[in-house]
Amino acid sequence: MNIYGANAIYINGIPLEDACRRWFKALHQLYARNVVQTHSAGQVGLKPDAVKPQTVKTLAETMEPETIEVTSSCGRITAKPIVAKLSSPFFHSSAMDGYAVRFADTFGASETTPLRLIEGKDAFYVNTGDPLPLGFTAVVMVEDVNLLSVGKEHYVEIIKGATPYQHVRVIGEDIVATELILPENHRVRAVDIGALLASGYTKVNVRRRPRVAIIPTGSELIEPGTPLSYGHIIESNSWMLSQMVEDSGASAVRLPIVEDDFEKIKSAVLGAVSSNDAVMIIAGSSAGTKDYTARVISELGEVIVHGVNIKPGRPLLLGAISDKPVIGIPGYPVSAYITYNLFVEPLIQKLLGLEAGSSLPNEASVPPMRQHSGQLRVKATLSRPINSTIGQEEFIRVKVGMVGDTMVATPLGRGAGIMMSLVSADGMLRVPAMSEGLGARAEVEIELMRPLEDVYNTIVCIGSHDNTLDVIFNQLKKRYPGYSLSSAMVGSMGGIMAIKKGIAHVAGTHLLHEETGLYNVPFIDQLLKGMKIVLINLVYREQGLIVKKGNPKNIKDIDDLVRDDVTFVNRQDGTGTRLLTNKCLRDKGLSPAMVKGFFDMVEFTHMGVASAVSSGMADTGMGILSASLALGLDFIPVTKERYDLLMTRESYELPIMKALLDIIGNDAEFREIVTSLGGYDLSDMGKVLYET
Amino acid sequence: MNIYGANAIYINGIPLEDACRRWFKALHQLYARNVVQTHSAGQVGLKPDAVKPQTVKTLAETMEPETIEVTSSCGRITAKPIVAKLSSPFFHSSAMDGYAVRFADTFGASETTPLRLIEGKDAFYVNTGDPLPLGFTAVVMVEDVNLLSVGKEHYVEIIKGATPYQHVRVIGEDIVATELILPENHRVRAVDIGALLASGYTKVNVRRRPRVAIIPTGSELIEPGTPLSYGHIIESNSWMLSQMVEDSGASAVRLPIVEDDFEKIKSAVLGAVSSNDAVMIIAGSSAGTKDYTARVISELGEVIVHGVNIKPGRPLLLGAISDKPVIGIPGYPVSAYITYNLFVEPLIQKLLGLEAGSSLPNEASVPPMRQHSGQLRVKATLSRPINSTIGQEEFIRVKVGMVGDTMVATPLGRGAGIMMSLVSADGMLRVPAMSEGLGARAEVEIELMRPLEDVYNTIVCIGSHDNTLDVIFNQLKKRYPGYSLSSAMVGSMGGIMAIKKGIAHVAGTHLLHEETGLYNVPFIDQLLKGMKIVLINLVYREQGLIVKKGNPKNIKDIDDLVRDDVTFVNRQDGTGTRLLTNKCLRDKGLSPAMVKGFFDMVEFTHMGVASAVSSGMADTGMGILSASLALGLDFIPVTKERYDLLMTRESYELPIMKALLDIIGNDAEFREIVTSLGGYDLSDMGKVLYET
Repeated sequence: MNIYGANAIYINGIPLEDACRRWFKALHQLYARNVVQTHSAGQVGLKPDAVKPQTVKTLAETMEPETIEVTSSCGRITAKPIVAKLSSPFFHSSAMDGYAVRFADTFGASETTPLRLIEGKDAFYVNTGDPLPLGFTAVVMVEDVNLLSVGKEHYVEIIKGATPYQHVRVIGEDIVATELILPENHRVRAVDIGALLASGYTKVNVRRRPRVAIIPTGSELIEPGTPLSYGHIIESNSWMLSQMVEDSGASAVRLPIVEDDFEKIKSAVLGAVSSNDAVMIIAGSSAGTKDYTARVISELGEVIVHGVNIKPGRPLLLGAISDKPVIGIPGYPVSAYITYNLFVEPLIQKLLGLEAGSSLPNEASVPPMRQHSGQLRVKATLSRPINSTIGQEEFIRVKVGMVGDTMVATPLGRGAGIMMSLVSADGMLRVPAMSEGLGARAEVEIELMRPLEDVYNTIVCIGSHDNTLDVIFNQLKKRYPGYSLSSAMVGSMGGIMAIKKGIAHVAGTHLLHEETGLYNVPFIDQLLKGMKIVLINLVYREQGLIVKKGNPKNIKDIDDLVRDDVTFVNRQDGTGTRLLTNKCLRDKGLSPAMVKGFFDMVEFTHMGVASAVSSGMADTGMGILSASLALGLDFIPVTKERYDLLMTRESYELPIMKALLDIIGNDAEFREIVTSLGGYDLSDMGKVLYET
Repeated sequence: MNIYGANAIYINGIPLEDACRRWFKALHQLYARNVVQTHSAGQVGLKPDAVKPQTVKTLAETMEPETIEVTSSCGRITAKPIVAKLSSPFFHSSAMDGYAVRFADTFGASETTPLRLIEGKDAFYVNTGDPLPLGFTAVVMVEDVNLLSVGKEHYVEIIKGATPYQHVRVIGEDIVATELILPENHRVRAVDIGALLASGYTKVNVRRRPRVAIIPTGSELIEPGTPLSYGHIIESNSWMLSQMVEDSGASAVRLPIVEDDFEKIKSAVLGAVSSNDAVMIIAGSSAGTKDYTARVISELGEVIVHGVNIKPGRPLLLGAISDKPVIGIPGYPVSAYITYNLFVEPLIQKLLGLEAGSSLPNEASVPPMRQHSGQLRVKATLSRPINSTIGQEEFIRVKVGMVGDTMVATPLGRGAGIMMSLVSADGMLRVPAMSEGLGARAEVEIELMRPLEDVYNTIVCIGSHDNTLDVIFNQLKKRYPGYSLSSAMVGSMGGIMAIKKGIAHVAGTHLLHEETGLYNVPFIDQLLKGMKIVLINLVYREQGLIVKKGNPKNIKDIDDLVRDDVTFVNRQDGTGTRLLTNKCLRDKGLSPAMVKGFFDMVEFTHMGVASAVSSGMADTGMGILSASLALGLDFIPVTKERYDLLMTRESYELPIMKALLDIIGNDAEFREIVTSLGGYDLSDMGKVLYET
């Protein structure tokens, strides 16, 4: 049985470029149908009020413009060219504090033949900005005159002739009436508000903000703030999308949650279409038994695209009802974010007349991700390999940082449901459909989601995970707001290798060398031979077995891990914690194969391990005390280990690193917070333990 | 007499770096006095509600935070770290459409030994996102099962064992409770709203927006929209600054205009100080007879800095009243813009906890100009030389464009009153105090005020001025919103040289070769020998003498220019129009020295000439008919000339140039507008007249 039936085309989706081409072409057709004869865009340079028939119709012109106050027009888009009503200045005014004179009166004045002008008749005091008395044609600076009184008469004595209009702001110096102040399709800024007011405008004609309705669907959804019970999901996507719509310059209309019911969804969509310019339906765009979005759109209008060959974001629906675009947005937050940026953001930009890049009217290139820094693309080196499925274009969120001369990109969690991968992301990496993946150190192009300056001011931390890194990150943002810390959890060994490869500023490491019983140093000596490094202690911390509250399986030590009724959650390869588990098992003569879950259940952080225990996925796992305490679990201590920060001497000297070391070394608040996490010994915190 | 008296220090102002150091140090002291014991910044990773005494006080912490709805928190700054209240997902849920099973039940299933699970007992259908029934631990994709019915019983047949938690979104996969969602001092974005709601928040603790009062002063000022009479100035600075304050993330409180009256200003300032966090007083910060700002501040509080050695912006006042910062902003719009960015914007950033860049608590570096693209600095080549006064740091607005591999910066009008230089600017160039100026082709660093992508999509047009260029600019923004045209008016000869030097995409030129009577081609052959160029006609246009409406001086032809009672306004050297005047005079046997104003009165555009005539500065000037018509002046025709666009073949092939040529060649609306300007013959518009 194949429940997809008629939806077979949907399964893989069509290529992204095809989807964009179909969508943007369809949009032009849709709106063309709606066009009524609109006003002219006016004209420039002459007769601002003349109206001319239009010969070229843009998508933006299909929306009726509106007239608003100049003082509240910031961020809005001009709907026609704006030419100055008035010149500015509007009269000759003084550009200096001094005396207004008639330049013709001053001919022949010199040091040997000073000239006296009668104050109040041939010379008038003017402050900067004052109008010149009518017929006066120059200003002599106050520094260049002598004031004399003879009897009741006051004189202004000058020793140099004035040139015509010297120190005068002449009429139209700034703005000449009829001059173009702002073109059509211009986003109004603070300086434009000043120029519009100065050139005689109090109102301005701008594009109406398109209204975009957002309908969250799903019987499992509850409104934020509602008490949560099993199976419920807090509806957050619509609020994220609402804000994205507002950020795009449109007006978001968030409608109530609709349960998975064909008729109810249909009726909500019909209502939304009638009073908005576009409609987004969240979730139900796939082909499951409760996915009604495609049926609703095809019953009420037409489906243009169902399924795009991208990951995340495949179950996307693009359609139209009553000549209004209707978009079925997939329900996973990352899918929602990506498909919004690819298909809805460009729609709004076109309606506003801000279509980005080089777009001929019907051209449909794949748009860039929404960005903070003007669609900045940077070349970067991948810090970790990426596998990718052939035949599907993938969008991977990455952290980006600058280490030495290398821009380093580290992939974040890839699931469509990993909201935090968007929160943490600095940029987006597109892996083409025909790629099987990218190797570590591959050169890639990243679309930045943060300003470049933020990337330069980010400490790249790759290596072992510890909860204190979160505290450092926060304390850094608090005390040095321009700085940031980006951490990728690849285990201690991965951290040391990242330092070796020059793709991290700092690595957290807690590798115990079995023969010598020393931490970290033997590995550094072996792996980083010849490099200048500094090793600084962060903490000593307690490692042990994290178990459920009350320890229901009565786990007492390592021997219990091989019990049939005990499932263990492990850390990934190359982590000091996994090595510790290995060592503990070997010390007892036990084999990893005897431990249920050892190879199957892997988490990437201590909190992941604690969470797996807390949720019942596993009975126990090796981790740090602070993670256990954070989730209110119980803990069986196994060892106390040293956790250090490793960096090159070059990184050690950087201002951003000085800020980090200042926090570790001198910040009493930081120490109090770490102490309160539990399980930490701070006696060597900030001390240099080894350097080469 | 020296009216500056005690203000002698003010005359030149102190160096910018000193002013910044004094100001930022003073701010830390001011706020330190105001500090009451505030709440803790909370802590990370554990016990989110615990309160700890603080040991490091930042400027931002002196402001009481406030609690607002998450859904309206976009753009606000977190006042403490936010850790997840809930895990997300909050239960194990299906990551696929399929059947939930207990993985232990599936051991041993294979193609040869398929396993049948009873539907509704050992297997349940789940859609993506559905919770797993309690105790169920894996999902088998719907594609991988066979559905069978035997009697009334329905079976789900599988041919492969399930691994633990396969196709399951496990609890905490996205967010683990107690995990850090957002650090302190983080600006909330759309994705953060999603993450905050998903992790259990409906409210969020953010920094209060500082209230900044703005008091415009000046007896000459009127509110926008008030009928204008001689000597009045429309008050626009306060509205520009209000928007800049809002853009900085603070709240602007614009107060009514106060006339130049010591007591009235004093009372307005006192009122503003009592209910706001900072106060800006616009104008009156200089040392003229009606400049009261310094006296008001020193009487009510203390002056910290009076006069900074920058241009524009010298007459700046920094002070404090009742421990509140009070800033005297100079009255010229460009001075206001620059001093706001240097001294007020960083203050707001500090109060919000967003201080940019590498700022140790008391460090006071000179801040960058406010920017759209994350403080992006680019290297550029100067297209024109710049003179600068030694001993004064100068801020020069520039247009920036990319020609071939060269980023080209062209200086704009430099006066402090040239608002339009801010409207047109792509970036800011700082000329250090000790520089005498910069030569053409100098390598300079530009602080971009637009996204870099905009710079790449800008056509750089250097050369002769014609009013149709404004129309092209507007039409380009209308039909190709991603593209822009930047034009610098340096005359026809300057345009040809700009093409030669590779610093312009296109040059407008109308050079008449005296011997041959040909336009442009002889100059191109001589000056651009060996280059591949394309010459395209834009228009034929009427040049003539622009005179006042009604021609009161009864000017009839070129002979009248040498009359004693006639003042002439000329164009700058290297312009085709100036050459035309020269030729006309020579033809009549007249010398330029006989023409009053010929060497003194120079304008850079046809509109500048028309404006000079309109305002009475001059009686006549040579210019194009459209400029004369635009200002309602009269016109005595002299000649009809050819105005062409010159470009290299390389530029001719660029997509941006194709867009421009599309408008010139095919846009009926464009032709109608140009025709309506008057004085243009479009018969060869868009035709290639010459190519090499």
